[in-house]
Amino acid sequence: MKISIAQLNYIIGDFEGNTAKMLNAVEIAKKQGADIVAFSELATSGYPPRDFLEFNDFINRADKSIEILKKASYDIAIVVGSPTKNPVIEGKDLYNSVFFLYEGEEKFRQHKTLLPTYDIFDEYRYFEPASEWGIVEFKGKKIALNICEDLWNLGNENPLYTINPMDEVIKYNPDFVINVSASPFDYKQGKIRLKVLKANVDRYNIPLFYINHVGAQTELIFDGGSVVMSPNSEVYEEMVYFKEEIKTFDLDDVKKNSKNIEQQKNKIALIHDALVLGVKDYFGKLGFKKAIIGLSGGLDSALTTAIAVEALGNENVFVIMMPSQFSSEHSITDSIDLCDNLEIDYEIIKIEDIYKEFTSKLNPLFKELPFNVAEENIQARTRGTLLMGYSNKFGNILLNTTNKSEMAVGYGTLYGDLAGGLSVIADIYKTEAYEVARYINRDDIIIPCHIINKPPSAELRPNQFDSDSLPDYDVLDKILFEYIEKRKGPKEIIKMGFDKKLVKRVLRMVNINEFKRYQTAPVLRVSKKAFGMGRRMPIVARYLS
Amino acid sequence: MKISIAQLNYIIGDFEGNTAKMLNAVEIAKKQGADIVAFSELATSGYPPRDFLEFNDFINRADKSIEILKKASYDIAIVVGSPTKNPVIEGKDLYNSVFFLYEGEEKFRQHKTLLPTYDIFDEYRYFEPASEWGIVEFKGKKIALNICEDLWNLGNENPLYTINPMDEVIKYNPDFVINVSASPFDYKQGKIRLKVLKANVDRYNIPLFYINHVGAQTELIFDGGSVVMSPNSEVYEEMVYFKEEIKTFDLDDVKKNSKNIEQQKNKIALIHDALVLGVKDYFGKLGFKKAIIGLSGGLDSALTTAIAVEALGNENVFVIMMPSQFSSEHSITDSIDLCDNLEIDYEIIKIEDIYKEFTSKLNPLFKELPFNVAEENIQARTRGTLLMGYSNKFGNILLNTTNKSEMAVGYGTLYGDLAGGLSVIADIYKTEAYEVARYINRDDIIIPCHIINKPPSAELRPNQFDSDSLPDYDVLDKILFEYIEKRKGPKEIIKMGFDKKLVKRVLRMVNINEFKRYQTAPVLRVSKKAFGMGRRMPIVARYLS
Repeated sequence: MKISIAQLNYIIGDFEGNTAKMLNAVEIAKKQGADIVAFSELATSGYPPRDFLEFNDFINRADKSIEILKKASYDIAIVVGSPTKNPVIEGKDLYNSVFFLYEGEEKFRQHKTLLPTYDIFDEYRYFEPASEWGIVEFKGKKIALNICEDLWNLGNENPLYTINPMDEVIKYNPDFVINVSASPFDYKQGKIRLKVLKANVDRYNIPLFYINHVGAQTELIFDGGSVVMSPNSEVYEEMVYFKEEIKTFDLDDVKKNSKNIEQQKNKIALIHDALVLGVKDYFGKLGFKKAIIGLSGGLDSALTTAIAVEALGNENVFVIMMPSQFSSEHSITDSIDLCDNLEIDYEIIKIEDIYKEFTSKLNPLFKELPFNVAEENIQARTRGTLLMGYSNKFGNILLNTTNKSEMAVGYGTLYGDLAGGLSVIADIYKTEAYEVARYINRDDIIIPCHIINKPPSAELRPNQFDSDSLPDYDVLDKILFEYIEKRKGPKEIIKMGFDKKLVKRVLRMVNINEFKRYQTAPVLRVSKKAFGMGRRMPIVARYLS
Repeated sequence: MKISIAQLNYIIGDFEGNTAKMLNAVEIAKKQGADIVAFSELATSGYPPRDFLEFNDFINRADKSIEILKKASYDIAIVVGSPTKNPVIEGKDLYNSVFFLYEGEEKFRQHKTLLPTYDIFDEYRYFEPASEWGIVEFKGKKIALNICEDLWNLGNENPLYTINPMDEVIKYNPDFVINVSASPFDYKQGKIRLKVLKANVDRYNIPLFYINHVGAQTELIFDGGSVVMSPNSEVYEEMVYFKEEIKTFDLDDVKKNSKNIEQQKNKIALIHDALVLGVKDYFGKLGFKKAIIGLSGGLDSALTTAIAVEALGNENVFVIMMPSQFSSEHSITDSIDLCDNLEIDYEIIKIEDIYKEFTSKLNPLFKELPFNVAEENIQARTRGTLLMGYSNKFGNILLNTTNKSEMAVGYGTLYGDLAGGLSVIADIYKTEAYEVARYINRDDIIIPCHIINKPPSAELRPNQFDSDSLPDYDVLDKILFEYIEKRKGPKEIIKMGFDKKLVKRVLRMVNINEFKRYQTAPVLRVSKKAFGMGRRMPIVARYLS
């Protein structure tokens, strides 16, 4: 028996487009001689559809997609995920379901049991968990179907659920498992995914076909990396990351295991590739082509620009440099070097006149109060307004260049340098941003060395450096990681050897700046805990603040 | 037996403050002769603590509050909600629990069974549901304890859960029920709450004491309105809305039912009172006093200013009028009239010079392209920058004045008129904003009649009116209500008699402007479906767009 894995990139709510893409894959799988072609979780609607699921109209359209796929299931069986209505009045109105379609009919339907409701996941918001389990028989084989998280209560120390749906299904002695998934990328996920899949095959001793989404959906990046596991708990093949692929596997070969193909898992390379795909799909799926970026001469805007050029092409990235009276000469010369290396167009607009016009209007109100953050922010907002003006005139999307360290401690100006449609690098700490920049320079110098080597500065007042307001990024990033990713409290972090005053100051900065993060662009997620939909904090609170 | 309801206003994460407030209430309840004093759901931590719950340190602090309350429980029993650790490794790490404390000890603990996970609720994100139920015996009475949603699977047509915890508890023949709640306000909630509580008393025929939070937590406003129900399913007393209150009830009187006290439930008055409390607590709990608002001469900024003055006092509200070359004369004269009525200070800053400075810098890039939304937005962002400059210099929080209709269709400028720390009226449609304005004018003219009566205009180009770009608000608001609150699809809305083209255009405007709503301030929630944490939509999608 041959099973084809269709690792595809869907658009949320684009039922026609997603169905057409699947029908095309069905034809390819047939040509590859497949008996079954399997698509991923909620493939009809795209994942995550979020509150569109609450619209009856949306579910009806998903049903219609299933009807169309049924008609394509005459010479090949189709396994596909879709949201379905719960026929019972009690409980949630929907199930997250996987269908087995064959001979123009629905042969089997299994609902998802384990509904991830943590971090970026909200599945119990919409779905009732399965309470019945079964298998489908097809060409003499018994096949178990399940959905993503259904395999994830094994292989970790703190299981989130009190049941294991595979334990129920294994009673029917299935020959193999097909798991349809939509499991988003982070730089640790590839390894963890294989560990979890191995734990399952280890326990149940049957082959496993795991089909993942690929492509970015606003902040979430799905890396693909679909997996075929041999029953001896070896990886038979891990499919390509960050790309669509349709590949057919022979069940007998999988049982024998002769391949052991895995993908590279270098953290910085993965982050780089994920961010490029994140930018590409954000623009492509929204129907936009061109980006605009403000270049400051610093690392973050240079890095964002290099990633944007890889994602969109140099003809689609335009940058503006906006020096003030406080800007260094190298802020311009370094930026021009970068533009030359990337072969992109740029413009220089001096902001001093606008800044002076602002302050002349405000000075009667400000009286004789000294220069402070108010004047600094006026510069940043002047730049934001110029960039958004260009964006509004030409339809370029403004890319935000904030990094995770700044975002965490609120070192940025709302409506100024925090403006933009998408935050490209706001899930990587400053210290990681350097690593990604060096990775981009691995063959040729793209990002000028002086940009990487000079001390970071916002240049909003004379001789300003980040180190005036913030601890060294080496120390800061470590404290932030323990607090944000590891969710450790002050006592635990201080016990690790960090300075008590510093820890309290950093945690306070994170907490009192929640209001800024509430109003910033979606952040491409590459870590286990990104700002945005996966980290939900009150703005008004009095905890560590 | 006497039961005291302590309807209090907590601050999230302020364990010391919340505990001190409860200890004070314990003393008052004792003076009132109470045998039991009951506080609300998660009273130790405040509600909703959101992802602070994922910090071990946070839960430890809640445990410490319970220890302190235990020591105060010698002459009176204390019923109080708090998050607790799940001792079992499988399942979520926490329970949402209610304690019965007496004689310095924990006499009983009941976990919450029904975990709301919809709209603004995320409880299954954190908590394991109860799987055991019991009662506590106290002074010869059997008492059932439960938490908020545990009563809410009755009295509605589409029950969300497949079990009913009260059905389990009733087996022990309790004499009465204490329900500790944190149930946020919307203008329909008061009526629904009584209906649900009546359905419970109807079914179980025992008295019910329902203790709710009061006070605003960022976007959520808790209205209090704690309820005592007599066993014959009559309301014995519905406590005050939007205020703290500690009140003691005699169980024998409640059984007899002699009172039937209910609160007024006029929609517009409720919305008004809720918004005033929302603004007041946002400032008070963050430790801020003063607001800054941009006055345009239109209804929305006038209404926001009037609400802010009620919440903060006229000495704490400062406004700036920022006319451009496109502003009408009445935009200033009407605003001055409003300031005179409210007795607040104002300043006028003309923006034309700044606008011209911006366009002179951008014109070399814009070439000969015609005036469009880019130039309109520069005006709005100039105003935003001036207001934020004032905010940054003096520490006044900028209040956002956008209404729900504009927010829905994206009729506003990001970083311009969409700027601000809190959106005061963005959960009321334009047509409702008129009603609230008239309510504010019920005794004296506060908001000048010309502001209410003139046609709405953004005044960003010559002779611009909202009606140039948008359908009449009467029609628009009805379509928006069906789509946003009722989650009806285009077919269903068209079937109601609305123009097909118009419906499609409006729904498209809502969906393609998700990116703007992602970056705007938290919205005070007064309806069943507000923008913000309770409405989660993808930005990148192709559905009705």
